[in-house]
Amino acid sequence: MPAPSEPLHDIAHLGSVELLTPKPDRSLWYFRDLLGMEPVHESGGSVYLRGYGDYATSTLKLTAAKTAGVGCVSWRATSPQALERRAKAIEAAGLGIGWTNGDFGRGRSYRFRDPDGHLMEAYYEEQKFVAPPALHSTLKNLPQKYTGRGVCARRVDHLALLAQDVETNRKFAVELLGFQLREQVRYDQGKTEIGSWMSPTAIHHQLAYVVDVKGARGRLHHFSMWVDNRDDVLRAADILSENGIFIEAGPSKHNNSQGFYLYSYEPGGNRIEVYSGSFLVTAPDWEPVTWSEEERGTGTYWGATLPDSFIQYATPDVQTPNTAPAPEVLKEAIASLS
Amino acid sequence: MPAPSEPLHDIAHLGSVELLTPKPDRSLWYFRDLLGMEPVHESGGSVYLRGYGDYATSTLKLTAAKTAGVGCVSWRATSPQALERRAKAIEAAGLGIGWTNGDFGRGRSYRFRDPDGHLMEAYYEEQKFVAPPALHSTLKNLPQKYTGRGVCARRVDHLALLAQDVETNRKFAVELLGFQLREQVRYDQGKTEIGSWMSPTAIHHQLAYVVDVKGARGRLHHFSMWVDNRDDVLRAADILSENGIFIEAGPSKHNNSQGFYLYSYEPGGNRIEVYSGSFLVTAPDWEPVTWSEEERGTGTYWGATLPDSFIQYATPDVQTPNTAPAPEVLKEAIASLS
Amino acid sequence: MPAPSEPLHDIAHLGSVELLTPKPDRSLWYFRDLLGMEPVHESGGSVYLRGYGDYATSTLKLTAAKTAGVGCVSWRATSPQALERRAKAIEAAGLGIGWTNGDFGRGRSYRFRDPDGHLMEAYYEEQKFVAPPALHSTLKNLPQKYTGRGVCARRVDHLALLAQDVETNRKFAVELLGFQLREQVRYDQGKTEIGSWMSPTAIHHQLAYVVDVKGARGRLHHFSMWVDNRDDVLRAADILSENGIFIEAGPSKHNNSQGFYLYSYEPGGNRIEVYSGSFLVTAPDWEPVTWSEEERGTGTYWGATLPDSFIQYATPDVQTPNTAPAPEVLKEAIASLS
Amino acid sequence: MPAPSEPLHDIAHLGSVELLTPKPDRSLWYFRDLLGMEPVHESGGSVYLRGYGDYATSTLKLTAAKTAGVGCVSWRATSPQALERRAKAIEAAGLGIGWTNGDFGRGRSYRFRDPDGHLMEAYYEEQKFVAPPALHSTLKNLPQKYTGRGVCARRVDHLALLAQDVETNRKFAVELLGFQLREQVRYDQGKTEIGSWMSPTAIHHQLAYVVDVKGARGRLHHFSMWVDNRDDVLRAADILSENGIFIEAGPSKHNNSQGFYLYSYEPGGNRIEVYSGSFLVTAPDWEPVTWSEEERGTGTYWGATLPDSFIQYATPDVQTPNTAPAPEVLKEAIASLS
Repeated sequence: MPAPSEPLHDIAHLGSVELLTPKPDRSLWYFRDLLGMEPVHESGGSVYLRGYGDYATSTLKLTAAKTAGVGCVSWRATSPQALERRAKAIEAAGLGIGWTNGDFGRGRSYRFRDPDGHLMEAYYEEQKFVAPPALHSTLKNLPQKYTGRGVCARRVDHLALLAQDVETNRKFAVELLGFQLREQVRYDQGKTEIGSWMSPTAIHHQLAYVVDVKGARGRLHHFSMWVDNRDDVLRAADILSENGIFIEAGPSKHNNSQGFYLYSYEPGGNRIEVYSGSFLVTAPDWEPVTWSEEERGTGTYWGATLPDSFIQYATPDVQTPNTAPAPEVLKEAIASLS
Repeated sequence: MPAPSEPLHDIAHLGSVELLTPKPDRSLWYFRDLLGMEPVHESGGSVYLRGYGDYATSTLKLTAAKTAGVGCVSWRATSPQALERRAKAIEAAGLGIGWTNGDFGRGRSYRFRDPDGHLMEAYYEEQKFVAPPALHSTLKNLPQKYTGRGVCARRVDHLALLAQDVETNRKFAVELLGFQLREQVRYDQGKTEIGSWMSPTAIHHQLAYVVDVKGARGRLHHFSMWVDNRDDVLRAADILSENGIFIEAGPSKHNNSQGFYLYSYEPGGNRIEVYSGSFLVTAPDWEPVTWSEEERGTGTYWGATLPDSFIQYATPDVQTPNTAPAPEVLKEAIASLS
Repeated sequence: MPAPSEPLHDIAHLGSVELLTPKPDRSLWYFRDLLGMEPVHESGGSVYLRGYGDYATSTLKLTAAKTAGVGCVSWRATSPQALERRAKAIEAAGLGIGWTNGDFGRGRSYRFRDPDGHLMEAYYEEQKFVAPPALHSTLKNLPQKYTGRGVCARRVDHLALLAQDVETNRKFAVELLGFQLREQVRYDQGKTEIGSWMSPTAIHHQLAYVVDVKGARGRLHHFSMWVDNRDDVLRAADILSENGIFIEAGPSKHNNSQGFYLYSYEPGGNRIEVYSGSFLVTAPDWEPVTWSEEERGTGTYWGATLPDSFIQYATPDVQTPNTAPAPEVLKEAIASLS
Repeated sequence: MPAPSEPLHDIAHLGSVELLTPKPDRSLWYFRDLLGMEPVHESGGSVYLRGYGDYATSTLKLTAAKTAGVGCVSWRATSPQALERRAKAIEAAGLGIGWTNGDFGRGRSYRFRDPDGHLMEAYYEEQKFVAPPALHSTLKNLPQKYTGRGVCARRVDHLALLAQDVETNRKFAVELLGFQLREQVRYDQGKTEIGSWMSPTAIHHQLAYVVDVKGARGRLHHFSMWVDNRDDVLRAADILSENGIFIEAGPSKHNNSQGFYLYSYEPGGNRIEVYSGSFLVTAPDWEPVTWSEEERGTGTYWGATLPDSFIQYATPDVQTPNTAPAPEVLKEAIASLS
């Protein structure tokens, strides 16, 4: 195990995200025909999809459910040893659930919950995608043909989760998963942590925790797919508009992350982002950039206003604030991280 | 220290490149006024420049010299301990030169040569750039104002070095620096290693070794600066054309790396690339993509032809093949890596 | 003279716009350093500027004045005969002022007012721009070097004027200037004409009249410069933001005109648009597209909201509604067109 | 009729082009699935297609034939009177064929041949496209939904024809059709006219004549479809490459016209261009830009080389030079224009 002062490199990257949808057929249409993702497998009420540039077989698992929201968030470990180390550390923190035999295209995983209750897992064995003939690319280093269908999103980028207590969940991600903290929004002269953006790799952030203004637990703010150019995001806005998809905000540019964003709701209700721009972080000693209320403003750079729904709406949608205390099983872990 | 089978994470990223130029004033004009880089320091015949998005104070050192070429290539370590580990390993391999007190904006460095003789160093302490008022950005997470001057290159991306023996140098970078091998060109049914592309981070490659067809040593093929969008590369071509700069190739798209390239010669003679596109690699077990003669073709994707100079010309320019054997000091290291 | 049913081709295009500014130095900085326009002449308190792609010597005249607003709007005729025809027709309509000896770079012009009172002129003789050596382009068909400075706006595109009575002014432009009506916004089941977009050429619109909600006369809504790609508009937003310029709206996409817009206030107070996208109209029998309240919505396509200032603010700024009747001199013309 | 010195405005724009193909199914796949054009009608061995932004019902007629090449080139007149005027003038010049009852979506046309023998027609009555529900756009001013399929070319832009004698055909287009000459390539100190680019509207050129180096008659060099941004052309190159289409040249930038080009061969053999950039011409007294051998160079701006096939290949393909004299019927017209 590395010396204390050295960065942890046990998690390599965000592997996949499971989205729950009450309208599986329409959600599939959105991701396949509009975002241009490729369905590669179907089983047990779930469809597995991928971006054309994802090296893994699947990076999005679409699962029929009563309400929209996020299912399991999967992180790939950098090695079998790293996976064991993380499993032990998480288990010791009281957040562990246990080992699974693995999902489609992967080896066994260790499942756990973050302090807010979101279901997560870590795994190492990953089946590299081998394209069927019809999806064979003429580029040898591209795992799949660029089909050009719809937005044709390239790869998974990140997700943002809501949390009752951002600080505790941020500490969890930094200390137990080894993520580097990239940016923060802190109100009240820095005393209130409103949001934190983190990553296990050079991608600016692969996980964000933002405070749940309704006080609920386990909710999803958005899931984000990458395209290479800002122009692709503009084109995505035209495609979504022509197909009757509600665009909540963008295309425009965030100040935190510098991301060029486009938020829409897929038919199942989840907020989906088509994303480009932002910047890579390679500094091993990156100092998190912290934004106050005034500095953050509306969270955009060119003056665009994010609608109130951007703060209020998440999946599953809850009508009234829920201030229920954390389940017993999470309390010890939360205490240790707070 | 990690177990043998775990990836090494001791080098974080390419820190800076020193370019030698016989026309320092004209070269400075090229990098400052055309590429839009910012000069931040001058001393001892060198001007230090940076891209507006580089977090480090300087990523390009422009040094007056009799002939064009590459001076010292600097790599940032992930921690003080990592720096010590790399210094010891390189010294043990017989490639070490010794410690320096550090260059502008940095702490001490350990200098060494790659087997082909290129001068390199590793360091950890890095002075984060703090912009003077005139260069203060309105974006808190941008180290410097986006001036919009010329191409306005964002950050250092990579460099490509020529080598007499690609295989030995590739092994050096993988085994001693811990870089991940991303792509290769291999001729003669895989027996002849023509080029190898490697990286210590998610950026597709930060170092490439390509065979020196003139059999020389220590030469530079090109140095590459990143812009965020392909459109920025097209705009760069217009700016270079309007200013009488010779464009050797592009804008077009490589097949290996998928990079969107634009190669020109700065007035000192070095080949400089304005670069975008390509793709990130986050897989801890990435399998290098290998291209044969036929698969590689001209090295471009859409059918553009790279001119003969792309193979023949490098800096310093040599008129006749030089098949001089390696200096004594490098022989042992070369033997151990071959 | 063409038969009645044939379209009139007497006006070729928008030639130039004179903007009035109470802060001439700061306005010059905005247009020269940020928008990247080229100052080519100075006389009598006015600076003449051009976009790098304008074939005419100057397309923007910046004139020091007590308050911001629009000075003279100049239209180029298609021939000397066409100029005579327009002068006679306008004079006959009671809107004529008389002939001038011409402004910088041009022959004599016939001055007049539109029914709302905006000063306009038509001219034919135009001095083609010949670039001084420093601005010589390497492209023989480009009148001036693409300097790459700031936004580097290519050419004048259009202007939008406010009017007390849109219908009358629209009829004036269609009947007396021969413009083709391209789009309209009509409220109250089509009874109230809120805005009309017109053009003498294939460019979607070069003149728009929009109702002045404050009931004033002779005001400017915005002046618009063209860039070739949507990406150039995004880049413009970054440049303006870094230089402390207030962005009122955009970059985003209008529904009417399909224009990709970015509105900012130049330091003198005038609203300036950096513009791309939109579409060309070549149909000789184009049927104007009419938008009702509901269809127009906020005037944007992807859901962005235009701020209230977009409706309320114009130059010169007036604090209270002015419902003064039209000057006597304009009444007859207004009557004949209504 | 206008006075001699006034420009003629009888032709409004290029209406449509008929392409002949020996592989109609594959050609249809190329235009529909790759370029993203919309088939709207089928009759008599022809499929009629349109770009999503074309206001006319159809702008490309794809006709099964023994060999590739161009069928009828259709020009829309600006008025019924203008159509009559052109018919009479062309008839008087000895190039007329006669009136037809009109093709799909149009009223009667007057057919003729240019001096090189290419079949052309002029018409005025045009059926504005009304989209079926599935193709209804959410933009009221867009005649058809932006489907996002493949390249999704917006509209017809221009075509380039080969001619034995460029000068005669250029004179025909300027004098009889009223096109404005925009650019020329002239070799031998201006004595040999190699190519001429002309247009009836602000679009830089809608018709080009280039010398046929094989001395044949009636051949097509290329047909060109417009996309709004340079980035769309880059994306087109990816789509064509992934689908095994041969890219002959580009994406890159021409010097003459400043067009951003991408040339590929559709499966039937015709050279098709995906095109953006270029510039509008609104000057009524535009002075043609003339390029000598040296100035023109390879015809590209950034240094790219156009392959020899770009000069040699056209449709129908002819193996050996054909120096057959002009048919009797064309001789008189040629004589009058030379």
